[in-house]
Amino acid sequence: MTQMLFRHRRQLLQAFGMAGLGTLPFSSGLLAQTEPDVPGLVEFQRLLAANRILANENIVDAFGHVSVRDPRNPAQFVMSRSRSPALVELEDLMEFDLDGVPLDQRGRTPYGERMIHAAIYAARPEINSVVHNHAYAVLPFTVTDVALKPVVHAAAIIGAEIPVWDIRNEYGDTDMLVRRIEQGRSLAETLGDNTCLLMRGHGAVVTGTDIPRAVLTAIYLQVNAQVLLQARQLGEPALLNEAEVAAATASQFSDLALPRAWEYYCQRAGIDPV
Amino acid sequence: MTQMLFRHRRQLLQAFGMAGLGTLPFSSGLLAQTEPDVPGLVEFQRLLAANRILANENIVDAFGHVSVRDPRNPAQFVMSRSRSPALVELEDLMEFDLDGVPLDQRGRTPYGERMIHAAIYAARPEINSVVHNHAYAVLPFTVTDVALKPVVHAAAIIGAEIPVWDIRNEYGDTDMLVRRIEQGRSLAETLGDNTCLLMRGHGAVVTGTDIPRAVLTAIYLQVNAQVLLQARQLGEPALLNEAEVAAATASQFSDLALPRAWEYYCQRAGIDPV
Amino acid sequence: MTQMLFRHRRQLLQAFGMAGLGTLPFSSGLLAQTEPDVPGLVEFQRLLAANRILANENIVDAFGHVSVRDPRNPAQFVMSRSRSPALVELEDLMEFDLDGVPLDQRGRTPYGERMIHAAIYAARPEINSVVHNHAYAVLPFTVTDVALKPVVHAAAIIGAEIPVWDIRNEYGDTDMLVRRIEQGRSLAETLGDNTCLLMRGHGAVVTGTDIPRAVLTAIYLQVNAQVLLQARQLGEPALLNEAEVAAATASQFSDLALPRAWEYYCQRAGIDPV
Amino acid sequence: MTQMLFRHRRQLLQAFGMAGLGTLPFSSGLLAQTEPDVPGLVEFQRLLAANRILANENIVDAFGHVSVRDPRNPAQFVMSRSRSPALVELEDLMEFDLDGVPLDQRGRTPYGERMIHAAIYAARPEINSVVHNHAYAVLPFTVTDVALKPVVHAAAIIGAEIPVWDIRNEYGDTDMLVRRIEQGRSLAETLGDNTCLLMRGHGAVVTGTDIPRAVLTAIYLQVNAQVLLQARQLGEPALLNEAEVAAATASQFSDLALPRAWEYYCQRAGIDPV
Repeated sequence: MTQMLFRHRRQLLQAFGMAGLGTLPFSSGLLAQTEPDVPGLVEFQRLLAANRILANENIVDAFGHVSVRDPRNPAQFVMSRSRSPALVELEDLMEFDLDGVPLDQRGRTPYGERMIHAAIYAARPEINSVVHNHAYAVLPFTVTDVALKPVVHAAAIIGAEIPVWDIRNEYGDTDMLVRRIEQGRSLAETLGDNTCLLMRGHGAVVTGTDIPRAVLTAIYLQVNAQVLLQARQLGEPALLNEAEVAAATASQFSDLALPRAWEYYCQRAGIDPV
Repeated sequence: MTQMLFRHRRQLLQAFGMAGLGTLPFSSGLLAQTEPDVPGLVEFQRLLAANRILANENIVDAFGHVSVRDPRNPAQFVMSRSRSPALVELEDLMEFDLDGVPLDQRGRTPYGERMIHAAIYAARPEINSVVHNHAYAVLPFTVTDVALKPVVHAAAIIGAEIPVWDIRNEYGDTDMLVRRIEQGRSLAETLGDNTCLLMRGHGAVVTGTDIPRAVLTAIYLQVNAQVLLQARQLGEPALLNEAEVAAATASQFSDLALPRAWEYYCQRAGIDPV
Repeated sequence: MTQMLFRHRRQLLQAFGMAGLGTLPFSSGLLAQTEPDVPGLVEFQRLLAANRILANENIVDAFGHVSVRDPRNPAQFVMSRSRSPALVELEDLMEFDLDGVPLDQRGRTPYGERMIHAAIYAARPEINSVVHNHAYAVLPFTVTDVALKPVVHAAAIIGAEIPVWDIRNEYGDTDMLVRRIEQGRSLAETLGDNTCLLMRGHGAVVTGTDIPRAVLTAIYLQVNAQVLLQARQLGEPALLNEAEVAAATASQFSDLALPRAWEYYCQRAGIDPV
Repeated sequence: MTQMLFRHRRQLLQAFGMAGLGTLPFSSGLLAQTEPDVPGLVEFQRLLAANRILANENIVDAFGHVSVRDPRNPAQFVMSRSRSPALVELEDLMEFDLDGVPLDQRGRTPYGERMIHAAIYAARPEINSVVHNHAYAVLPFTVTDVALKPVVHAAAIIGAEIPVWDIRNEYGDTDMLVRRIEQGRSLAETLGDNTCLLMRGHGAVVTGTDIPRAVLTAIYLQVNAQVLLQARQLGEPALLNEAEVAAATASQFSDLALPRAWEYYCQRAGIDPV
């Protein structure tokens, strides 16, 4: 199945050409060696897809990362070695425990901020995918007092409240990166039961019960930021109320809408929906 | 003719490569089976083109939809099953009656908000195409008090008045979606004789006497929103007056301008004008 | 030479794929029949290039047009029939006299607003190319009192003063289009000795002593509008003074800079510089 | 190695098509003649890559340039002849002394503003690469009093202070270009020990201890400008403090982050990382 997945993708690319990110080839050699029935393979393919999609939609640039709780062991998670999401291949995936310790390093350098992911998987058993990004339209909301709240129903999935975590409060002057597991735990505590969190002068964290939900939420966090910024230039925006946020979230994550979105973003990134 | 249409398109794509949306292949198998003289086929090809164009111009993303009144029966309309417009193929098209009931479901899931279309076709006999979208630049105008009015002649086609419909007024807290035919009728009543309508915290509805007019209006609704937002940052914008709106609309929809625009947007989306 | 020009272009496109506008094929049949030493052919090739460049840089969309004074007869000018600039081919070019009357119509529909071009060529003997466009970032300056003045040296070429012409002043309620030669003359009178003019609620007119100058100026008119809008959000912008505008214009139009820009924009549009 | 580098690139382009800039072919003839072990060749390949990357990321348009201190002789630097960065090829590279005098002109026209580079290399021995650009989002900060300071950690590399140099202060009314070595020295004096400098009504200068650092800083100068402009529309932004700027700069330029970014931007521009 893997081979078919990527053979199809390659044919599409060759036939039609592709623009933007997400067009760089997977290492076909490595994939050819992959057994199609490796446990968890579908999740890992989705993780590759998530990397390409987030790059293709300008949610991540050279920096940012996405992870998945290991489907084979909920006390582990999987994410790429330190590499730009646009370029991540299957061989880049590494396993970590919930303290962020690599379990199969083989000389590969992990992301410095894997502790964000580790601490959230430890604190939130229902969360199975985490995105960290610096989406440009979100950044203004990390350095001002204006709360980033959902203004349109499609963005309700970002949640009614988005806390802001400032590393300086507990850790003083730093390079702003979440490098230690205690810092990750502090961030996870501020996140609480919410879906998203902003990091002052840095970026955002987005969580989901699966990869498609986390990816769609990261995309709409950026859309909502842009819409809210512009709406405020016109006047005081009417926000969704909490009941609307809850109901619209359920609709966006229903079978009516979520597969439609996942198919769309996969195809835009040149990947067969998986 | 169908086969030629898409064979030509495929050659174009293979020869030149294509970027962005609208580049994903139509199901050639299905098209090969289509009789070239099926009644209404030209309208259905235009509906496919409209889906691709709206995606290519960023009027719709994963969500949003476009429909056409059935040329074979004015008491019916045709739109895709629940699928992102960028990906819609001929086999996805479904027929509905003016209560939004599918007439030929064959296991396919319809869009949840087809009632917007149904109610407008019932209320407005002269309308033959409806677009529903969440174009990002339009959204700020759905949540503030600033009226979205035409500032430039090319956008006069959006009409002198654009009412805003808030589902909360009649239906209280919802998921913001127009799921029931009564909700669609309420929206259609607020629309009245206007061309466009904004939905609070949600998006827009655009109507046209045919598909090209509806598509062009949806595109220019977004252009006008962006221009008006920016103009307000400079000062109080001079708007078109009602006579100018009427005269400029007639010019934009004349044989001098409309076919020029339709040819342009089709070609940008990689589709032979139809 | 023509054939080589476009054969090279076609090879480039086939080898590398191309994105955006300007990628649609010229009619090779027509070009194959073109004699390479037709008088004025270089200017007509430049006019085709200008059409593609203006589309590729989002200076025009479905609407807008560019013309050249006929190199064979200064009392005539040449522009496309009514067609989107992205799609214009050699066979679309038509000749007009300085009243805007077509000289070789052959059943083709001319642009409704050719009178803008006709009146400017009549009033300004040193002008040899005219662009009319609705570039979105320029439009806000057509409906507010903020003067569009050059803020950066690369945009000095737009000129120190840009008058605004409002068709309503002399002609009352219209469809906003310059349809009659008297309207064109009124516009040309407001333009005076300036390089650019804004049309209230409509768009812009840009002139040049040749095609590359007119095209570069149209591009930088949009850049300057965007920069000025943003600068005003920060505070009161320091403008170039008149001496700086004059000196920077001379530099931008010198042999050091102009061919560099023309080569760049041609290549971006997939066209061999001509 | 050179030949492999570009053969690989060409294969990628042929197989996948590429969009945007950076897709125009290097002169394969010239490259075929290049000895793979020419001293400094890696730096010159990086300089070509930097030209393509800066064009591909919209940091430069037709104008702007990037240089490298000559790895073979620190009293020289290397940059293209007067040509748009998107189009620069190996044969365009010229050597200059630290007064900006061409050492191997062979009839080629140098950039008018090479004095910016010459004077900075003379004043700052630790600087080995200089970028001059007119990135549109940076320009508003060149004409207003709002200081361009880092708001997010990824942009800390632009430095805590960015001075603004106004050519008018010392040289009165000019064409705004740094044409004489004394003007370059005046600019370099204002730059002082900082990384970046803004030129009033003109653009920016960015320096780096190597090419990847200069390129990444130029990219993030634009990102930070955009974020700061938007943040100010929300309220008074919290800036990074000086300790955070220093620590985050060290992290962004560490082996964890810099190669990740360089690989990413090279691949986006269609170039094998070098």
